[in-house]
Amino acid sequence: MAARAYLDYNASAPLLRVAREAVVAALEAANPSSVHGEGRAARRLMEEARARIAGLVNARPQHIVFTSGATEGATTLLAPDWRMGKAPLRFSHLYICSADHSCLRSGGRFLPDQITQIGVDGQGLLKLDALAQALASHDKAQGLALVAVHAANNESGVVQPLEDIASVVKAAGGVLVLDAVQAAGRILLDMSKPCADYLILSAHKIGGPKGVGAIIAASDLMMPQPLITGGGQEKSHRAGTENLPGIAGFGAAAESASESFKTIDEVRKLRDRFEDVVLELVPDALIFGRAAPRLANTLFFAIPGLKAETAQIAFDLAGVALSAGSACSSGKVGASPVLTAMGFDEIQGALRVSIGQATDMHDLELFRSALAGIVSRRSGGGRAA
Amino acid sequence: MAARAYLDYNASAPLLRVAREAVVAALEAANPSSVHGEGRAARRLMEEARARIAGLVNARPQHIVFTSGATEGATTLLAPDWRMGKAPLRFSHLYICSADHSCLRSGGRFLPDQITQIGVDGQGLLKLDALAQALASHDKAQGLALVAVHAANNESGVVQPLEDIASVVKAAGGVLVLDAVQAAGRILLDMSKPCADYLILSAHKIGGPKGVGAIIAASDLMMPQPLITGGGQEKSHRAGTENLPGIAGFGAAAESASESFKTIDEVRKLRDRFEDVVLELVPDALIFGRAAPRLANTLFFAIPGLKAETAQIAFDLAGVALSAGSACSSGKVGASPVLTAMGFDEIQGALRVSIGQATDMHDLELFRSALAGIVSRRSGGGRAA
Repeated sequence: MAARAYLDYNASAPLLRVAREAVVAALEAANPSSVHGEGRAARRLMEEARARIAGLVNARPQHIVFTSGATEGATTLLAPDWRMGKAPLRFSHLYICSADHSCLRSGGRFLPDQITQIGVDGQGLLKLDALAQALASHDKAQGLALVAVHAANNESGVVQPLEDIASVVKAAGGVLVLDAVQAAGRILLDMSKPCADYLILSAHKIGGPKGVGAIIAASDLMMPQPLITGGGQEKSHRAGTENLPGIAGFGAAAESASESFKTIDEVRKLRDRFEDVVLELVPDALIFGRAAPRLANTLFFAIPGLKAETAQIAFDLAGVALSAGSACSSGKVGASPVLTAMGFDEIQGALRVSIGQATDMHDLELFRSALAGIVSRRSGGGRAA
Repeated sequence: MAARAYLDYNASAPLLRVAREAVVAALEAANPSSVHGEGRAARRLMEEARARIAGLVNARPQHIVFTSGATEGATTLLAPDWRMGKAPLRFSHLYICSADHSCLRSGGRFLPDQITQIGVDGQGLLKLDALAQALASHDKAQGLALVAVHAANNESGVVQPLEDIASVVKAAGGVLVLDAVQAAGRILLDMSKPCADYLILSAHKIGGPKGVGAIIAASDLMMPQPLITGGGQEKSHRAGTENLPGIAGFGAAAESASESFKTIDEVRKLRDRFEDVVLELVPDALIFGRAAPRLANTLFFAIPGLKAETAQIAFDLAGVALSAGSACSSGKVGASPVLTAMGFDEIQGALRVSIGQATDMHDLELFRSALAGIVSRRSGGGRAA
């Protein structure tokens, strides 16, 4: 696949070399719960990875619980029943954002009538006043308020006003879960400062392997009732033999992400060149979230009159892998929930270019020639239906 | 670690070479839900693995749902709320076995008062009459009866009378979930015959990687409400980006297990030699489940007067990795629930030797000399407390 450009990092970032090596090195490890020498060596590998992941977001290693990915992390945290030490604790209502990833929008273990969606503006930014209003009318007698919001949007790359959201939630006595899947390694996340109470991470979005993620708490005061029960792994917060190769790869990717964050501006400059190419070849293109803070690596745009799915297939045939919306609703073709939330109901989908540290000028040129071909067919042979 | 013997396959079997290769080959694969060429190639890898795993238990590939392991599989299946097509279906009570693995004994998503434990006899075999009696008094007006039992015991290796259990459950109109984690590849499991309605498998117990497992249905009539919600992966039965490297490794291990099952008698002969060594050096040793059908690879025994934890550490120091009970209750030292269920409350724990196709005479000799040393210290320096 020499002549292909992979521009779909937000669906899954290519595995980093260091992560690959860490996975391979951990493949033969024993069960980290075994007490023999082999088991203890496996546990050391796991705890090293935990420390590396803590380093990425300046958290404490002991506040990390490994999961099989962000979706499990969300379903774990988005739960009415929690514990504070041994005492039960109840969240009576969940407040999510209408542009959240489906793993938050599903509401986890809350019932549909326990969930309120807070909208976003035309730039994709959470409506802070709407959140404040919703929390002001939250009935504390029934239980606490849980707020779950994405830190950065998986489709548009729009970065939410995290400090403002945290202030609003804190002022209302709520608890804040941040879906940091797309934000990790791309914006600064510091759990030692007033930020979120809980983060959700996924390894494969930062160059680690698929099948592993984590939830990270700011303190060890409160934790949800476990989602997966059985053995005593992860301090009884998550039962089941740990995915050790995955965890080791996650740790290596996190360490690498901490390092490469220093050069995130290079990624931003390259993303801006992709944007320039779009606007040069498609002057009437819509770039979503352009007036809002955005992730350095993401470009979300629509070509008027051209269905995103059609364009996505044409890009694929021309050797460019990019996405029409998110990959997560397997096989489903439909309106982007993010675009709908932003008020663009009538748009025929949008295209997402998401890049990373390994993206280069070669990828840009492949993208340019693919887009040029699509645009020429569009203007030549009439608009696609 | 040239001079070590790994005799803890039931905690985690060493990764098979073919599984390692399959994991490594799939490490760079894209998101199987992406529609571009890279995504479609990833999906093909996943479906190949699904077919291989189906082959191990003669099931249909489309009846397999991948999970992060057996514990997630158990928590998924052990649920009161199911669906038959789009119609809701309710299980009002769960019947488990007192010698089940903790992931069944936890009861999954059932409340404690919805769970009944059925005992085992002194050989570790489920009391069929007790099960029949319990199911006879099940109140069908409240909902269906769900029965979850291990096919083979993780500690003792005792194989349950599967056909008889299936008959009893079927006669009572119940649904049967089999924890086939230890049985897979070691006894014949054929989902095309009247057997279980659902199987739970774990990759790393059959030589695949940690962090992946599956639930396998005999038909696609009924499925539990998803445990992990969000995207539409796995036909909406299990959301979240799939652990593709893990799944690929699982597939390769399953294919290998189907093949190596043909030589399971060799494993049995070697296990019997371990047993001979125990009885030769410790004539008063207790061998658990010896009068029952047992897995070919498992030997579970106690040395009178010697604490299992003490012996386990001594074995480890002498280069032999084996287990005192199961590995799954991380860091917990306590009575074996399996021994307690079998009526051996007063036993100071037991030792589990669990081997595989790669175990050889070298391992046996290391075990013999380690055990000889432990026994000589026991008879020489007085009994350990």
